Amino acid sequence: MTETIKASPHQELLERFRAGQRVALARAISLVEDTRPGFERLLHELHADLGRAQRIGITGPPGAGKSTLTSKLAMMYREREERVGIVAVDPSSPFTGGALLGDRIRMNNISTDPGVFIRSMATRGALGGLATTSKEVADLLDAFGFARVILETVGVGQTELDIAGTADTSVVVLVPESGDSIQAMKAGLMEIADVFVINKADRPGADKLAQEIEVMLHMRLGDMPASAGHHGVSLKTVQKHAREGLRAHAHEEGGWAIPVIRTVAQSGEGLDELQRTLDRHQVYLNESGELSRRRQRRLAERVRAVVERRLQRLVWERGQGDEILQASLAALEAGADSPYTVAERIVGELGVPTR
Amino acid sequence: MTETIKASPHQELLERFRAGQRVALARAISLVEDTRPGFERLLHELHADLGRAQRIGITGPPGAGKSTLTSKLAMMYREREERVGIVAVDPSSPFTGGALLGDRIRMNNISTDPGVFIRSMATRGALGGLATTSKEVADLLDAFGFARVILETVGVGQTELDIAGTADTSVVVLVPESGDSIQAMKAGLMEIADVFVINKADRPGADKLAQEIEVMLHMRLGDMPASAGHHGVSLKTVQKHAREGLRAHAHEEGGWAIPVIRTVAQSGEGLDELQRTLDRHQVYLNESGELSRRRQRRLAERVRAVVERRLQRLVWERGQGDEILQASLAALEAGADSPYTVAERIVGELGVPTR
Repeated sequence: MTETIKASPHQELLERFRAGQRVALARAISLVEDTRPGFERLLHELHADLGRAQRIGITGPPGAGKSTLTSKLAMMYREREERVGIVAVDPSSPFTGGALLGDRIRMNNISTDPGVFIRSMATRGALGGLATTSKEVADLLDAFGFARVILETVGVGQTELDIAGTADTSVVVLVPESGDSIQAMKAGLMEIADVFVINKADRPGADKLAQEIEVMLHMRLGDMPASAGHHGVSLKTVQKHAREGLRAHAHEEGGWAIPVIRTVAQSGEGLDELQRTLDRHQVYLNESGELSRRRQRRLAERVRAVVERRLQRLVWERGQGDEILQASLAALEAGADSPYTVAERIVGELGVPTR
Repeated sequence: MTETIKASPHQELLERFRAGQRVALARAISLVEDTRPGFERLLHELHADLGRAQRIGITGPPGAGKSTLTSKLAMMYREREERVGIVAVDPSSPFTGGALLGDRIRMNNISTDPGVFIRSMATRGALGGLATTSKEVADLLDAFGFARVILETVGVGQTELDIAGTADTSVVVLVPESGDSIQAMKAGLMEIADVFVINKADRPGADKLAQEIEVMLHMRLGDMPASAGHHGVSLKTVQKHAREGLRAHAHEEGGWAIPVIRTVAQSGEGLDELQRTLDRHQVYLNESGELSRRRQRRLAERVRAVVERRLQRLVWERGQGDEILQASLAALEAGADSPYTVAERIVGELGVPTR
């Protein structure tokens, strides 16, 4: 079990990484993405170097302009001579070669800048889980010394929200025409947002969307279960409650009032305000102690994910899980055996002492 | 380890379930959703009863009209006196109380019909994983005797695609104005679709969307990696290749030509054709042997998921994983310890013999 930590087959890589060689960073990322031998050792070695970057999650529905925002923000940080790492976990992102139909934004400025590193992640088939791997890649960018690490993910789906939601600062991007703002909220965006951006705010509906978000922030819709059996609440009800004094609850999370910022990423409108807000949130995180709380949560989640990955490998790569499974398929299909008894045999075969 | 399978604390529930009591079905679903003691035993007992239902996955972006389609289909099956179970894993679905803004469709006809059972799933916090639990709930509906079990999920995100993609028949619903059809494809929809539906086909853009889907089907875009470092291909390139004879590859998967059906779910237009297509796919699955292959894949996946869940419980509920983790948090944050060594200690504590 311990070989990956004990031996370090990547000492040279580590040294070149620490010397700031970009090619070593790229190799380290591939190592982690492919979960090749020694990748955990490498991450272990770099763990003490983490925590200097501000991790910014940018998420929202497809077409909200997340990639344009990300590019523009990156350029603005570059003007301040800060280095920026970008992890794109969004199959529709131009960073991942997504924008097939000519929507591709002009990223030339940043993609050739040595102070910017862009890595897009495959959205399927990541060994050991996309969420964990993306965060480990963000770790590498942090350890490499980027002052800002931006995680761009499409904001629908559990995995994707998980990635964006574990950043230091999570930005949720919506557009007036999305028309499903409240549904988006219920899908979990409300709970992760530190900052709301209404992008393409020059289009009709921006005011209405801003109002909806404000109302929901006041109502803390995030506390409403999105689960079975609960009936929907109309916007009118929400507004009524808001008027009736729930405004007192406000949308302040321990001193941080979640702002709603209007931008037009294409033209740059509102981006100064967004950047100032991100800076302000970083200060808030530090001064309030919230940064430490968030990072502890993130570390605990990481431990759980790594344990899970190790157990998986134990069963499916070292154990006889696959043999047992294959030998059981016919009986499973015939209904003579069930997935539950087969799983029991596979776990039993590990020889874990039962207490 | 084996207690959950050996003892059956739910014998009476099982009997009432088999007697067709709806309240027993509801109780069984809650048991499974909450992964309460004995839930695996119950699923084990019912395993031999599975496989009679056609499982239909309905997925697509928010606002595509999935719930309306689902309701209308359910009504049509009811006209044939077939019973229908619905599992909604979509926070924006009216079934989950999602449509706050008055979009709520009229489901009164089906929600009061004893031949229809609707269960919406919480999209977060499901113990043991949303994907597995949703499929286990679908199992219960199958075992209970529903002829059609419809799984409605929002078609973005790994978990959500996984749920819809493991149905017998997967329907991908798009709308003309979504405008991001190709990105949607790259996000994995192409790979899971047995049937494409262009809903709201009376709106502008339906022809263009149909053409795009056809072209991509001919190109088998599903084979193109959506991963890092691959440059996007323009629609023109795709069309050029298609013209140059790749049409020979066609979009036939072992005899099934993936149809693109136009519907207007609100008015019912095209729904007859959709239902006929679903029937035709069921026949195809049976006659081609594809049903058996799909179900074997599904069973193998289930075994893996159940093994994973059991290992999780072993570590976090029976083992001392949590104690070790909590005791390590300060060192983790200080950088004195890393998630990888802590994970190693936790797994080591299980006492799995290393080979």
